[in-house]
Amino acid sequence: MLPLSERGLTLPPSPYRKLTPFAEAARRRGLTVHPLNIGQPDIETPPQMLAAVQQADIRVLEYGPTAGTDSYRQVLADYYQQQGLKVAADDILVTAGGSEAISFALLACLNPGDEFIVPEPFYGPYAGFAVATGTHLVPVASYLADDFALPPISEFEAKITPRTRAILICSPNNPTGYVYSRAELEQLRDLCLRHNLYLLSDEAYREFCYDGRFTSALELAGAEQHVVLLDTISKRYSACGARIGALVTKNQALRDVVFKLAQLRVCPPGLGQLLAQAAADLPADYFDYTKAEYLARRDLMVRRLRAMPGVRCPLPRGAFYVLCHLPVDDAGRFCQWLLEEFDLNGETLMASPAAGFYATAELGRQQVRLAYVIHHDLINRAMDCLEMALHQYPGRQND
Amino acid sequence: MLPLSERGLTLPPSPYRKLTPFAEAARRRGLTVHPLNIGQPDIETPPQMLAAVQQADIRVLEYGPTAGTDSYRQVLADYYQQQGLKVAADDILVTAGGSEAISFALLACLNPGDEFIVPEPFYGPYAGFAVATGTHLVPVASYLADDFALPPISEFEAKITPRTRAILICSPNNPTGYVYSRAELEQLRDLCLRHNLYLLSDEAYREFCYDGRFTSALELAGAEQHVVLLDTISKRYSACGARIGALVTKNQALRDVVFKLAQLRVCPPGLGQLLAQAAADLPADYFDYTKAEYLARRDLMVRRLRAMPGVRCPLPRGAFYVLCHLPVDDAGRFCQWLLEEFDLNGETLMASPAAGFYATAELGRQQVRLAYVIHHDLINRAMDCLEMALHQYPGRQND
Repeated sequence: MLPLSERGLTLPPSPYRKLTPFAEAARRRGLTVHPLNIGQPDIETPPQMLAAVQQADIRVLEYGPTAGTDSYRQVLADYYQQQGLKVAADDILVTAGGSEAISFALLACLNPGDEFIVPEPFYGPYAGFAVATGTHLVPVASYLADDFALPPISEFEAKITPRTRAILICSPNNPTGYVYSRAELEQLRDLCLRHNLYLLSDEAYREFCYDGRFTSALELAGAEQHVVLLDTISKRYSACGARIGALVTKNQALRDVVFKLAQLRVCPPGLGQLLAQAAADLPADYFDYTKAEYLARRDLMVRRLRAMPGVRCPLPRGAFYVLCHLPVDDAGRFCQWLLEEFDLNGETLMASPAAGFYATAELGRQQVRLAYVIHHDLINRAMDCLEMALHQYPGRQND
Repeated sequence: MLPLSERGLTLPPSPYRKLTPFAEAARRRGLTVHPLNIGQPDIETPPQMLAAVQQADIRVLEYGPTAGTDSYRQVLADYYQQQGLKVAADDILVTAGGSEAISFALLACLNPGDEFIVPEPFYGPYAGFAVATGTHLVPVASYLADDFALPPISEFEAKITPRTRAILICSPNNPTGYVYSRAELEQLRDLCLRHNLYLLSDEAYREFCYDGRFTSALELAGAEQHVVLLDTISKRYSACGARIGALVTKNQALRDVVFKLAQLRVCPPGLGQLLAQAAADLPADYFDYTKAEYLARRDLMVRRLRAMPGVRCPLPRGAFYVLCHLPVDDAGRFCQWLLEEFDLNGETLMASPAAGFYATAELGRQQVRLAYVIHHDLINRAMDCLEMALHQYPGRQND
């Protein structure tokens, strides 16, 4: 046998797709499986953006510039500037999705063996990126009872070691939907300044903030050299398959290093970049529609969940996920049971057991993440299923 | 100052683009700069392939499957099968360009500190991928006097240590144009079997082989568990900007690990994949035209180079590069001089100093890589420039 790398073997599989074989089997048995497990919006990709690719006059699909085309970087800078962020085109490096931005940030800011602190629950693949880059993800617990608000700064302080290099946050948060307030972000900024840490800010859901104003880490005065924005068009324009993201920072020395990493893959995807650039042509009220749609879905899902005995559900103020407590022995077992043994008139639902979003798996044992990325009627039908399933599930466990 | 990672700081900048600022300045001065420095073909991307994207009916540009779509993987498997290779769709993982395949292979096969052996000169970014993945590139020299043929296997043997995990080859070779014979590949196979090493085979130029038949590492009997093919559509279909490549291996355990790495970035670029899939609709003689075109350009460039006193140039049997010896003190200095101080009737050329393709930089001091990716007339004009420049260059050095 040829040896495989330790990092490869220890890499956790995606928490999103673990149940996929059971869902496929359920569909083969003829069941309708409502997919609440993955953040794949059903909102259409703006036709203007698709048209920009489909009408482009391309003779040779050439390599583009390593940092992204000047024209797209300018469009993206304009987008940030319209929100009052002082971002120039040169501050931006276009990436193959938000994931490449995460990977570049960890490779450029951390040595192997260095640590970054993340509030848990967190976007599951962060743990995998840590393994792939030889770095250590250090969790600080946030709690459903607090709506998953930022843990006290003292808890971050307690986790800081000589190997700590960065704090990684996601706001609006996947999987919790929590949106960090300006005051919370300022606490994080002060912490990063005090300990000379990078503040890596994943803002994949920055346009989906339903109550109050969203604060970007790029707004934090005095932290310009520390803040690294990790962005993507995937959710913003319902264009997950384009694989276009960005790493944005005012830190020139960091940008120079990231640029060298980016040279290894020559350039970001060209067709996706053409699509992304056409976001400039969207009407000013584009997000009004999508936000209103997600808001209505959120309210519906939260209302339904809160009406179920034993379910505890905070009000997620952003993104398009609900992380809720279920009265079950083990959410992983329950989610599998939903696919293998349950149906309501030929329908069931797929949810993400929350353990995959925690480094401390026990914290998520009774929680699931539900994405409200499907239509109202379907959300209602999925909630009907969940309500009935919680009655029938043999492992039901009241607190 | 915030610390940057050691790996980030030591990462070598791209050898391809070091001279770019000088070329830009030359163009601003009004010079025509013939770009022989980079492998960006001028051949048009097949219109049928672009049309497949442009006519696709897309409502939501969704995440695709992590390993690539079933339909594209089948098209790619068919392509290999037509060449007699026993590749099934399940053996393929679609990547964001060949570069992601290289990165995945090193991450999955090697631990940090492990070594892989590469004949030098080699594709420059290999050295950067080593730094990014914490691995060590160990060079074995090949020589222009031997046409850059495979170095004796004893030289590989001499470099093997307990940390050696893989041999990485590129055939047809970038930058030398050399195509490994079946006998050479069988020697490498035996070496890998003897020492339990992976054979990573970069076949980006697999369709561009002008004299005799190309042998793929996948043809090597008995090495199925060892061979990892690293492929890309960039050169094959002149679609460098699509960023679609593939990692192909019959080694299921390795594929499982690579799949987990691939899950971190969810899926390869969706639009590029649609384009790649339409390669299935190209006429059977598609490569005849491009190969004939490159062959004629190669013959022209080699003939011109060999007519220049002091220039030594092997006959490259594949890819679209010539790596030649110039009678100059330092090829890097000469290439910069071409852009800063030379012109022939308002024209000059950009070449790649070969030092960037060597770990042992001294070996490439008097060599440049020239890509024959431009039209015959332009090649002739670039060669006129080179010929005159070698007369005028103050650092001319005859052996």
